[in-house]
Amino acid sequence: MNWYLQNGKDSDVIISSRVRLSRNIEGIPFVQKCKTEELKTVYDKMKDATIAIGYGLKFISLKDLDDLNRELLVEKHLISPEFSKSKNPYTAIIINDEENICITINEEDHIKIQVFSSGLELENLMNLAIEIDQKIEELVPYSFNKKYGYLTACPTNVGTGLKISTISHLPALTITGNSRKVLNAVNNLGMSIKGIYGEGAKSDGDLYQISNNQTIGVTEKEITKNLKLISGKVIEQERMARKYLTKKGIDLEDKLYRDYGVLSNARKMSEEEARELISNVKLGTDLGIITELDDSKISRLILETKPASIQIKVGKKLSIYEQEIERANVIKQIIAN
Amino acid sequence: MNWYLQNGKDSDVIISSRVRLSRNIEGIPFVQKCKTEELKTVYDKMKDATIAIGYGLKFISLKDLDDLNRELLVEKHLISPEFSKSKNPYTAIIINDEENICITINEEDHIKIQVFSSGLELENLMNLAIEIDQKIEELVPYSFNKKYGYLTACPTNVGTGLKISTISHLPALTITGNSRKVLNAVNNLGMSIKGIYGEGAKSDGDLYQISNNQTIGVTEKEITKNLKLISGKVIEQERMARKYLTKKGIDLEDKLYRDYGVLSNARKMSEEEARELISNVKLGTDLGIITELDDSKISRLILETKPASIQIKVGKKLSIYEQEIERANVIKQIIAN
Repeated sequence: MNWYLQNGKDSDVIISSRVRLSRNIEGIPFVQKCKTEELKTVYDKMKDATIAIGYGLKFISLKDLDDLNRELLVEKHLISPEFSKSKNPYTAIIINDEENICITINEEDHIKIQVFSSGLELENLMNLAIEIDQKIEELVPYSFNKKYGYLTACPTNVGTGLKISTISHLPALTITGNSRKVLNAVNNLGMSIKGIYGEGAKSDGDLYQISNNQTIGVTEKEITKNLKLISGKVIEQERMARKYLTKKGIDLEDKLYRDYGVLSNARKMSEEEARELISNVKLGTDLGIITELDDSKISRLILETKPASIQIKVGKKLSIYEQEIERANVIKQIIAN
Repeated sequence: MNWYLQNGKDSDVIISSRVRLSRNIEGIPFVQKCKTEELKTVYDKMKDATIAIGYGLKFISLKDLDDLNRELLVEKHLISPEFSKSKNPYTAIIINDEENICITINEEDHIKIQVFSSGLELENLMNLAIEIDQKIEELVPYSFNKKYGYLTACPTNVGTGLKISTISHLPALTITGNSRKVLNAVNNLGMSIKGIYGEGAKSDGDLYQISNNQTIGVTEKEITKNLKLISGKVIEQERMARKYLTKKGIDLEDKLYRDYGVLSNARKMSEEEARELISNVKLGTDLGIITELDDSKISRLILETKPASIQIKVGKKLSIYEQEIERANVIKQIIAN
């Protein structure tokens, strides 16, 4: 099963965890300064290395994917929107069937090792990332400086080259009006927190990414420990807010079930409305109020209602209006299933 | 089965039909001028006559019913709100199990014979009313004037003493903004049409009563023919408006199914909101869009979500807030059944 359909630790609040290591190959300029043949060298080296890395990884050139399938990778948070639109002819991903490992080639850096898990799973992810990192390093020597550590295109990644993040679902903090306070507190603790679809809007599905700012002068272990600590605090705050909300009893139940009723019966629905309703329905499910759904269905609702997912399912490009109708169909099918 | 749970002719538009004959007993003043012992005479005469009238009728003194059960009769449109609150100790109804016959004793007139049917069923109802009328007349002589006809307390009933009416459901005329036009046209044709819960408000469930104004100088047959004709025109207009609406396709379907989703999933609901949602869900059912419900469930939803029905079901008086919660329960039970 794909990692994002699984049920992880603390997944009532933490949707997923990600570890990313930025690496560059010794003796080749950073991507932005590369000549075409140098980009090809990186691309070929990694293509040749793929089998040897193991994990059932496959090398997929981005130019072999159509627009919708690139967009699907973005919707799964496996690659960035910018990378999906890159004109560079030597971009690729190295990915396994479970999609919990996705290495990007010639994005901002030559190599970005990314590993994913549902729920809060930082240490295990960190270990997996380091294991993959060591296997690759045996095959292609990295650009490394004794004083600074790993060298990266963007100075904010120099050192460990590590970005570690969690995505949390904070609907109760939003409803009780406390999300701003928690966001500020996390930012003051040296971590970065932001809505994953952009700032502040209610329609962002109440999903927030927490990630480390610092990559140099601290060890991977310290960064991991810190993010775990802060994610734990956020979990605590969100759960307190939920406890407070449940005291509202029937009023909360009524609000969440009305949203469930609209979600499961509408005949057309915008992406934005779906996000908002799914967020509340997920809250209802996590609180044990809504019993018609489970975590796996919620994960599918979040992913499969996005534009590229919908169009790939139907097998053709759709207008926004057609997507809205098909989105309602998809939602009904997932819920009924 | 009670008449109001049955499925009648043209019941996509016409909810029900009613024929009412106002009669008074010869030699006894009208109710408002009666002494207590005269009220008792009317009451006793009709009590004694009940078995002889037939139809499985039973005599029930209103003073033997508590507030909620009187209110329930109002909610079923079997008696008027004023009659349910009457302080007169000699009020009664004569009613059968199907509740399609309900004769009121000492309301505005000594005797009001009322017969009901679901759907559009005017001639049969008229025949039944006349049949009952003749049986009663054999037992108690009526106050009748050769020139004017039957004498009644209110001059607007003198002559035939006949009020005949239909209740129609006109949601499409409301949605398309044409209800006012149709209401005016009916009023100009010498019939009276009005919202059954009061004027104009959207929350009246789009239910309208059409009834005759004239009771003198015309025969029962002419009145019946006229009301049938005009109800037919209203049916035609409403069906045209529905046909127009169905051209909106998915947009209409979406609207009606969202209402169905809220109706079937809410955990508390006001009487007003229930009326509005049930009206739209009935439209969806009549158009064949909503397939989860049938006419019998719709009839139950309309009746059993009213305040007295809810409280009688629970077996005690409830606050408005408690009624809202219980109303949502009742709705879910009817839909799931």
